[in-house]
Amino acid sequence: MAPERLVVVGGVAAGMSAASRARRINPELEVIVLEKGEHISYGTCGLTYLVSGVVPRAEDLLVYSPEFFREKRGIDVRTSHEVVELLPGQKQVVVKRGSDYAGLHYDKLVLATGGAPAMVIPGSDATCVFDCNSLARAVALRRFIEERRPKKGVVIGGGYIGLEAAEALRAWQMEVTLLERGITLLDNLEPEIERCVRSTLASHGVRVHTEAPVSALVARPGGGVNVLSGGGQAVEADVVVLATGLEPRVGLAAEAGIAIGPTGAIAVDERMQTNSASIYAAGDCTETHHLVTGRPAYVPLGTTANKQGRVAGENAAGGRATFPGIVGTLVTKVFDLEIAKTGLSVAEAQQEGFQAQAAHVESISRARYLAGKPLHAKLIFEQETGRLLGAQLAGEEGAARRVDIVATALTARLRLDEFVHLDLGYAPPFGPVYDPLLIAAWEGLQKIGRRR
Amino acid sequence: MAPERLVVVGGVAAGMSAASRARRINPELEVIVLEKGEHISYGTCGLTYLVSGVVPRAEDLLVYSPEFFREKRGIDVRTSHEVVELLPGQKQVVVKRGSDYAGLHYDKLVLATGGAPAMVIPGSDATCVFDCNSLARAVALRRFIEERRPKKGVVIGGGYIGLEAAEALRAWQMEVTLLERGITLLDNLEPEIERCVRSTLASHGVRVHTEAPVSALVARPGGGVNVLSGGGQAVEADVVVLATGLEPRVGLAAEAGIAIGPTGAIAVDERMQTNSASIYAAGDCTETHHLVTGRPAYVPLGTTANKQGRVAGENAAGGRATFPGIVGTLVTKVFDLEIAKTGLSVAEAQQEGFQAQAAHVESISRARYLAGKPLHAKLIFEQETGRLLGAQLAGEEGAARRVDIVATALTARLRLDEFVHLDLGYAPPFGPVYDPLLIAAWEGLQKIGRRR
Repeated sequence: MAPERLVVVGGVAAGMSAASRARRINPELEVIVLEKGEHISYGTCGLTYLVSGVVPRAEDLLVYSPEFFREKRGIDVRTSHEVVELLPGQKQVVVKRGSDYAGLHYDKLVLATGGAPAMVIPGSDATCVFDCNSLARAVALRRFIEERRPKKGVVIGGGYIGLEAAEALRAWQMEVTLLERGITLLDNLEPEIERCVRSTLASHGVRVHTEAPVSALVARPGGGVNVLSGGGQAVEADVVVLATGLEPRVGLAAEAGIAIGPTGAIAVDERMQTNSASIYAAGDCTETHHLVTGRPAYVPLGTTANKQGRVAGENAAGGRATFPGIVGTLVTKVFDLEIAKTGLSVAEAQQEGFQAQAAHVESISRARYLAGKPLHAKLIFEQETGRLLGAQLAGEEGAARRVDIVATALTARLRLDEFVHLDLGYAPPFGPVYDPLLIAAWEGLQKIGRRR
Repeated sequence: MAPERLVVVGGVAAGMSAASRARRINPELEVIVLEKGEHISYGTCGLTYLVSGVVPRAEDLLVYSPEFFREKRGIDVRTSHEVVELLPGQKQVVVKRGSDYAGLHYDKLVLATGGAPAMVIPGSDATCVFDCNSLARAVALRRFIEERRPKKGVVIGGGYIGLEAAEALRAWQMEVTLLERGITLLDNLEPEIERCVRSTLASHGVRVHTEAPVSALVARPGGGVNVLSGGGQAVEADVVVLATGLEPRVGLAAEAGIAIGPTGAIAVDERMQTNSASIYAAGDCTETHHLVTGRPAYVPLGTTANKQGRVAGENAAGGRATFPGIVGTLVTKVFDLEIAKTGLSVAEAQQEGFQAQAAHVESISRARYLAGKPLHAKLIFEQETGRLLGAQLAGEEGAARRVDIVATALTARLRLDEFVHLDLGYAPPFGPVYDPLLIAAWEGLQKIGRRR
């Protein structure tokens, strides 16, 4: 009997995780990865650090080479191979390589087609406009900066990539303006946390405009572009970084009749299986189950992509694994500020129909006598039951650390009255004796009138 | 109707928390705190930092003064008042002040008598022998070092206080030897973690001997002592720090017929009530419920003392609160190494009758391209069910952060197959894309043959 063949479309986080896991589960399986770009398996989350120069060379981000996968893991990795059509009826994909097209049979298919920039802005094809969505584009941006030494940079988008990109441009001594179309940075940041972020950006010389949707980029006579945003304002830019977020790349799947979920991403079950029995999907092209809302969500992140890929690969290879979902944890560091959130903001919780309440405290990251830094912590919870719904934190240290405690508590559906007694580690270099999160939980309990 | 009177015996963490909470719950209540020492409410956990000089002055550790409590919180704090007898039948305590004795009536009593050094070593009354169990003693040690400039220091006890004390003595350029009677440092450290600790101590010039019970301190003619430990070895010391751990101070309670639990500490229920209805107990004199073993445990720590004190105070004042228990979380920093543990070690789990398994990984604290440091993580779990039982971590950074995730998971009784999918925050400055804990959980799942 000929061994079965698994084809994986996409060779970054989810795709390579799926391929590796499938191979491990079933050594008889033929595993082919088709990647349209030149690189596979690179640290996408490190691209802004490559732009800033903190990571010196592109090669520093390459985790494994195609040769590694071929030789060590027996995975047939084919870069510069673009899948242009899925033919589920025939169990084939159509692959474009250069100007050649060829059909390739599969028994099982994993789609890991990733995401694409969420917004196309007129004029963004100008030569001074970049994004950080792939290694090639980050490399091009870095080269542009090194060669042209732009003086004025504009970042479009105030998510974590936008904030990191702003820091990266400041590292090259540019004047930096960040434009965000929404009313807060980082997608529904709570006001107390937003203030910390804005203050850090301001003190590091980044100008921020929110509610500033960009309508067009217009070439300027001497080079560079004018960035036109809401209200007709124009900001001059020698270089522009698009960080407008991702949308799932679902064209191939949709055309082949694979179900797309309410978020616009590929719908999958707990096993990462699509509505087509032989086809799985994972990573930035798929939606996932949000454990707090109980509904599908689209939260494209490398860490989720890896986990989903592993589950998709295991199931595609005949194993049995499930991915229960996410709680929406996000951490980032911008200049000297750690920012972290998980679960729902107050506004998001209310939109989901929760009677949401919140408790905010300003505490310290370590004992006062060891030079503790201010740390803001806000817990969001349900008024009636005290069930935790989310948290946001910001501070020079200790924010990233603490968000994972809440992420774990959200997964376990803890209530405030359970959370407040958590036996968290304490030593003077790591926190005050009452942890900021526990103080916030205590304040929360007072608000909802429990254990008074 | 005369307001009721609450008397609190002991004015450090548990005692002051109880007094403050009781007062808040019931503003009519008369609250009297009797503290035999001179100080109240100080950062006990910072005492080794005072010895090292990192904390310059004793006053830096004083959180609140007796006047603060008297004036701002209406709590009658009486320092240098020692309770020498409890008379539950008459609802009185006998108080010694200087050479005067007087009875004091109470309606409710909270015992927060703390702990005392667990071991009395012959010769430990020598003038060069100290401990870090109170502000006064830490101040005396610091003064001794500053005045006499000892060259050779010996620390007796390899718990976290012992390790911190060894670092403190090294800060004064002493030759330092640490003697621990048990076979590991920090009480059942796993071998992989122990190796990190030993290596750090060695590279910072601390000599460590385990299985070295100290039998006596013998005065030397020219000053200082010889420390005699198992096998008849003698270590010369100009200064000795006793860090042999605490035992609960239960004399008063036991003599008054208050029930002592199997750990030797005062037995309390979830409400911190003793077997005597009007008497509560909290902090280092009490035992607590261990949420992993389901049995009483004695784990004296400031953070638990504060929580227990708050619950005892609330209930003594007529409120209703419960303290569910602990999971045994401990973090400390020794030189440049973070060490953290929670729950049970493999040996402890086996003693408790669990079929324990463990998975150890050596990973990194942040992305490799951002100079991640080695991080060891070990998870302990039940073979049959995959239920998490404990964790230990060590590394230059990221150990303290991660132990709280496991502490939360232990409280929620998560299994490995749930833990492995936790949506932990990821960004290159904070970890690798697969968190070391999740890698360990994954390894663990392979070992118990789940989701293979």
